[in-house]
Amino acid sequence: MESYKTLEKIFRKLNDINQASSSLQWDMAVTMPSGGAEARTAQIATLSSIHHAILSDEGVGDLLAQAKSNENKLNEWQKANLYEMGKTYNHSAAVPRKLVHELTKEGLNCEMVWRKAREANDFSMLKPNLEKVVKLVREKASIKAEAFEMTPYDALLDEYDRGRKSAQIDDIFDNLKGFLPDFIKAVVEKQASQPKIMELKGPFPIDQQKQLANKILESIGFNFKNGRLDESHHPFCGGYPGDVRITTRYDEENFLTAIMGVQHEAGHAMYEAGLPQKWRGQPVGDAHGMSIHESQSRLLEMQVCRSEEFMKFAAPLYKDAFGGKGRAWSADNLYRINTKVQPSLIRVDADEVTYSAHILMRYYMEKYLISGDMEVADIPDAWSQGMEKFLGIKPENDKDGCMQDIHWMDGTFGYFPTYTLGAIYAAQIFHTAKSADPAIINKISKGDFNPLMKWLGTNIHEQGSLYSADGLVEKATGKSLDVEIYKDHLKARYLGE
Amino acid sequence: MESYKTLEKIFRKLNDINQASSSLQWDMAVTMPSGGAEARTAQIATLSSIHHAILSDEGVGDLLAQAKSNENKLNEWQKANLYEMGKTYNHSAAVPRKLVHELTKEGLNCEMVWRKAREANDFSMLKPNLEKVVKLVREKASIKAEAFEMTPYDALLDEYDRGRKSAQIDDIFDNLKGFLPDFIKAVVEKQASQPKIMELKGPFPIDQQKQLANKILESIGFNFKNGRLDESHHPFCGGYPGDVRITTRYDEENFLTAIMGVQHEAGHAMYEAGLPQKWRGQPVGDAHGMSIHESQSRLLEMQVCRSEEFMKFAAPLYKDAFGGKGRAWSADNLYRINTKVQPSLIRVDADEVTYSAHILMRYYMEKYLISGDMEVADIPDAWSQGMEKFLGIKPENDKDGCMQDIHWMDGTFGYFPTYTLGAIYAAQIFHTAKSADPAIINKISKGDFNPLMKWLGTNIHEQGSLYSADGLVEKATGKSLDVEIYKDHLKARYLGE
Repeated sequence: MESYKTLEKIFRKLNDINQASSSLQWDMAVTMPSGGAEARTAQIATLSSIHHAILSDEGVGDLLAQAKSNENKLNEWQKANLYEMGKTYNHSAAVPRKLVHELTKEGLNCEMVWRKAREANDFSMLKPNLEKVVKLVREKASIKAEAFEMTPYDALLDEYDRGRKSAQIDDIFDNLKGFLPDFIKAVVEKQASQPKIMELKGPFPIDQQKQLANKILESIGFNFKNGRLDESHHPFCGGYPGDVRITTRYDEENFLTAIMGVQHEAGHAMYEAGLPQKWRGQPVGDAHGMSIHESQSRLLEMQVCRSEEFMKFAAPLYKDAFGGKGRAWSADNLYRINTKVQPSLIRVDADEVTYSAHILMRYYMEKYLISGDMEVADIPDAWSQGMEKFLGIKPENDKDGCMQDIHWMDGTFGYFPTYTLGAIYAAQIFHTAKSADPAIINKISKGDFNPLMKWLGTNIHEQGSLYSADGLVEKATGKSLDVEIYKDHLKARYLGE
Repeated sequence: MESYKTLEKIFRKLNDINQASSSLQWDMAVTMPSGGAEARTAQIATLSSIHHAILSDEGVGDLLAQAKSNENKLNEWQKANLYEMGKTYNHSAAVPRKLVHELTKEGLNCEMVWRKAREANDFSMLKPNLEKVVKLVREKASIKAEAFEMTPYDALLDEYDRGRKSAQIDDIFDNLKGFLPDFIKAVVEKQASQPKIMELKGPFPIDQQKQLANKILESIGFNFKNGRLDESHHPFCGGYPGDVRITTRYDEENFLTAIMGVQHEAGHAMYEAGLPQKWRGQPVGDAHGMSIHESQSRLLEMQVCRSEEFMKFAAPLYKDAFGGKGRAWSADNLYRINTKVQPSLIRVDADEVTYSAHILMRYYMEKYLISGDMEVADIPDAWSQGMEKFLGIKPENDKDGCMQDIHWMDGTFGYFPTYTLGAIYAAQIFHTAKSADPAIINKISKGDFNPLMKWLGTNIHEQGSLYSADGLVEKATGKSLDVEIYKDHLKARYLGE
């Protein structure tokens, strides 16, 4: 018990460091002037080294072994906490400190260069930095692969989604690869035969958009005493329980970009805010891997906020916010705008259906980049080919092509598939929630998110990292991960089947 | 040489930690929602512990001894760097890690409670927290006093102003104590006999105030690529070279509060921005102790921005910003507003002359609080008595009395005297600068700060921590610290002598 208690202390300290680093990264994306980049990357790299050093130097390996051998004295949460500690330790202990430091530093450098290269639409400006990052990630992946006895790519998946294997993803994604292209065609065809969607005419003043975003966040139950809404180049949810910070970006010509960004990030935020109070600062009290995190954002953005029921509540709000007039602002027309399917270039702007096609393409590409079957120099061409194959369109430039996403820039490989896994989990979880409490969907049409958040709180948020991702969803929904529920949802919403 | 180089690496890491901590504190004061307080205090306390652990654990003491014994191989900057490293090490090594951690944590707690207690005007709410802080500071001071063979209060002074002794301060402050009361009376009397100052009529919209603040910062030479201007409860300058962040507070009824806050903090900011590029991340490349830092803010705010010459430039700017009309907006009337002397309750709003009286009172009080001749419970009464003695007025409540300042809340004792030392240095430095380059004062009346900043850059900013505070000023001005120059400045400006 004593060794376990010592581990809790050490992991509380590691949690402080992680949170500090997360806050510094939020600042870097939201408020930092450009002149601060060099100092900030050094700070974050140093914190990352210290994190690594604490795990290596304070006898954590021995403590874990001792605690493990006395595991029968621990309760269920403590056991799960110990498991998560072990996972963190293994990931850290496997990789030399120098490599960790290098990767953090080069990742932050590459991210800064990417911002400029993207603006200049110049892949060659980015290439040397991204090559450094990919080289270091491959190195890390192969070291972990050997230590964990798994493939290099699986070792990366394991960082974002404990225990996730590419074999499982291949099964699911191959299924979707067989389903999506024809489905997209069928939906596009069906929508083309329907009366024309009425466009919303801007401009939509940013201040009004911000007020609308605040109103929607309040309805969802976001507590501004424990969080913020800001602006950044790429929407994200940062922070931690007590201080959850979401960002979005505003476009005067299209307020839905900002609002849907907020709805998505609010899903992440409500999850963070609802994590078990009792286990704050311990690994088991943290949010689960990224596929569960993404299930919460997808659930809110896609399952809920693109539903006909939500639009009944939202349409008058949207209309009032911008002084909208006429049938373009009806719930029905807004629902049709939100569920319009159209292959397009930018992942974050994609509709619910084509989004997964973007992910499938990135998943296969990053597998090849890690295995060495593809090089950084090949990315632009591969991107064009992939877009054509998966979505039937080609980007005209790298800015709207392979340079649109931040992920690979800071060394985040193995993360992309969690978006679509999250969408699949979301369909399954929401399907169960609606059956469990019919009030959920009725109340949403009145802007009352309480029944939904209560159900999610109990069944997902408050579970922290007690179970595996698949285990959590099985416990919450009564069955294992089932891509067919996701497909049924899409067929029902988009083809009325 | 090798041991010195190793020390440079260690101190670069410590610098990263300090900067991270400073950024987290900035966020805490400017952007953090209240729910983040608990997590943030834990983060900062952990970083402080890690800083302390690195100094204790990585053989720094031995390395310092080795480097010291080979000091003849080091150049002047390296020697000064080694001296600063030794000072930092001694301050850290003297105090047990647990006490450091406690003090950081209790200081942050007390600061959070203070914000509420001040709002509620309830000293009893603050008292238990402040008592904890004072107890811990006394403990720290007496431990350091023994280690450094000096008085406990001198050991605290040494944290903010290397080598400063209360004996020197006593000399200077006793001199001022004999000068100020009569001088203040004489100035108030003289000003009462002059034609009435014309009031500026508000409201002054906050947006206009912000634009004006930005314009003035640009004239001064503040580079927004390497810094920001924000809002906080109490104006401060945070950050580090490359990312210097100043804050101010806005009052719709009085724009001068915000603008003078900006001018003051800009002095700090220009110093930080001008520190020697070559020594970034090393102790010798850091700003000197707080009395020199304060000399730069006082120089800009008091010597420059309250001068008749500056008002020639600023009056039209102020007038344009708010659509001002009539003689109230003349340079002459604005100068008289800025140099109006009037004993008042709030230190940060005090005029140039009475400000030092506020400091003298706090200096004597904190000496007694550290020596144990005064307790926290005595503060409200002592404050009233002090105000009456030094300024001839009494606060009606603790909010505008002993709870107005943040300093003691987080354990900052030994800092207050640096404000008046800074004002004295500022007078001496500006006196020399004006003689060295007569263009300085002429250009300021045209809004051109380049000659002044060039002189300050060469003589002060770029010197980093190469010399002692007194040594730096002696090198820059050709003579040792001389309170008479400060008094002469006051007599010239306020009595025309």
